Amino acid sequence: MSEVSVARFKGSVRIVGAGLLGTSIGLGLSKLGTSVALADSSPANLKLAIDYGAGKAAQGADQPDLVIVCVPPDVTATVVASELAAFPAAFVTDVASVKHQVLDQLTELGVDLSRYVGSHPMAGRERGGAISGRADLFLGRPWVITANAKSSAEAISAVETVALDLGSAPLKVDALEHDRAVALVSHVPQLVSSLLASRLIHAEPQDVALAGQGLRDTTRIAASDPKLWIQILAANAAQVAPVLKSLELELHGVVEALENIDQPGSLARISRALESGNHGVERIPGKHGTKQTSYAQVVVVIADKPGELGRLFNEVGEIGVNIEELKLEHSPSAPVGLVELYVLPSIEQKLISDLESRGWKIAG
Amino acid sequence: MSEVSVARFKGSVRIVGAGLLGTSIGLGLSKLGTSVALADSSPANLKLAIDYGAGKAAQGADQPDLVIVCVPPDVTATVVASELAAFPAAFVTDVASVKHQVLDQLTELGVDLSRYVGSHPMAGRERGGAISGRADLFLGRPWVITANAKSSAEAISAVETVALDLGSAPLKVDALEHDRAVALVSHVPQLVSSLLASRLIHAEPQDVALAGQGLRDTTRIAASDPKLWIQILAANAAQVAPVLKSLELELHGVVEALENIDQPGSLARISRALESGNHGVERIPGKHGTKQTSYAQVVVVIADKPGELGRLFNEVGEIGVNIEELKLEHSPSAPVGLVELYVLPSIEQKLISDLESRGWKIAG
Repeated sequence: MSEVSVARFKGSVRIVGAGLLGTSIGLGLSKLGTSVALADSSPANLKLAIDYGAGKAAQGADQPDLVIVCVPPDVTATVVASELAAFPAAFVTDVASVKHQVLDQLTELGVDLSRYVGSHPMAGRERGGAISGRADLFLGRPWVITANAKSSAEAISAVETVALDLGSAPLKVDALEHDRAVALVSHVPQLVSSLLASRLIHAEPQDVALAGQGLRDTTRIAASDPKLWIQILAANAAQVAPVLKSLELELHGVVEALENIDQPGSLARISRALESGNHGVERIPGKHGTKQTSYAQVVVVIADKPGELGRLFNEVGEIGVNIEELKLEHSPSAPVGLVELYVLPSIEQKLISDLESRGWKIAG
Repeated sequence: MSEVSVARFKGSVRIVGAGLLGTSIGLGLSKLGTSVALADSSPANLKLAIDYGAGKAAQGADQPDLVIVCVPPDVTATVVASELAAFPAAFVTDVASVKHQVLDQLTELGVDLSRYVGSHPMAGRERGGAISGRADLFLGRPWVITANAKSSAEAISAVETVALDLGSAPLKVDALEHDRAVALVSHVPQLVSSLLASRLIHAEPQDVALAGQGLRDTTRIAASDPKLWIQILAANAAQVAPVLKSLELELHGVVEALENIDQPGSLARISRALESGNHGVERIPGKHGTKQTSYAQVVVVIADKPGELGRLFNEVGEIGVNIEELKLEHSPSAPVGLVELYVLPSIEQKLISDLESRGWKIAG
């Protein structure tokens, strides 16, 4: 494991807001020995984050080199402005999911933008709060850095360095470009998933009993926190609305076609929607930037008892094959489970024959 | 492993249509020693399925006890009718994803409905065709049986027995109830996922580079086969349309609210959609009929090299803990992976402390 064990960032860090992101940043940096001071408007939150090891309580005499503002989106600009004023020698960044509005508000407030750099670590969990914080939250994730026209090179470098310390991959993007991108890949999917899941509210138990993996996947993020999301969506409404509107228009066409399924053109209209979906999903890069379909799938049937997974993966290790992705598919009430192993296609046959010769049952 | 090794169904089976489902049924039944005869309008398909071991080629002299029709939905009724006529002593079932239309068409055709039982194994894969067939496809999945008013007890029993032989859980449901349920839990999610994914067609590469697990989950099924799905949707348009229409209406409200984000009521409207999504997703049963949230999550950081997963699961086995679900979260370009283990909450602390004492790094 090529783990970072010494901080690249040599200064001290102040984190304002000890929620999921603030606590996770504090945990990650503290583990590297960086001096982290934490502040939160809730004493209980603050105490929890400190107990977890995310840093020490901020003191009046602190002279932070970098302030990371991890407060809800709707108060981000205000807090960034007050931090810039309170610590005239510090660089200040924030982690809000929407970047243009914060920059707009700061510009209106007339702050020293040279010391400010927006950022957005592309990491999160369905559950928020200090209690969900973890030092590895940012590992391998993009950390978008939205420098403004006045951001100093030193300020940008400070944020990049901290992002690298947390194991993430810094990525410089314009604030508006960022907002357009996340509207498409994150905010619209969130709303669509919520709207889809809400169809189930009045479903009969025997109906949802037929739910398969497709429904589970499409609605997983519908469990996300509405309080956080309403702020994100409000701040990025200008970018989200047109994408969602385009979806509404096509959805309307599909509904019309379904309502008039026997009329000429109806099937073609639905077909086009399905085919467009095929083309759209192909655009999503998989692991290591490859297409999702580039791995070979090997499905192994295992008994549902302690030790079976261990025995399987131990033997996969002995065979010397690296598993790129895996999925345990557990059937309700079944005494067996299916383990889906994804490997490079070049080693698929070796894995199958070696596993079979060791007595494993390969499905298919 | 409590594997079925002797067929409960003592008769011979004829399968018409050697696609994913037909081939998978043939593979599963053949492994139990059941006599399986295969027929397909494509000689190449048929040969492939036979090569895979799904059965022998159907002969003119065959006297099947049960015919399983596994052809595309739009020709299902016609084929069921001709099979009922060709084999007057046989029971006939089909596996089409939509049940009411088939029954309607058969009623119009005036066939002997006592020997017909509709069915729908709730199993599938994004990829179709004999080449994707596997004997374990139905393991632990519901197999919906939609008997009609005239179906004989013997016919129902034959289909139930074969479903059990394939390791699935037979579930008796009325045809129209079934169609209403799958519209909600399968057909609407498919269309919504396709419409969402199609937003990405013209996305910039740097935009989709920010895609996270949320987008991947919500659009996974958008990769499904349009040729199959257009038939399913056409056959179940009457059930799909109203659900999709209700989604369209709420989506319209959300779009309006986003377009007028500063007007009174806009935030409340979006909030309601997000909260309804929370309530909807809670309706989906997890493994063993429990809520998805009932497992404790333990995240272990492992190196991205052969043998690490094996070492981990081997030690989890030694600890004596049963893993209910697992997920390997692999970060692009990161040298480590995060393994999410889901266990019963009562053993979470033991697992964490035992793993840590063995030197594993628990995230968080």
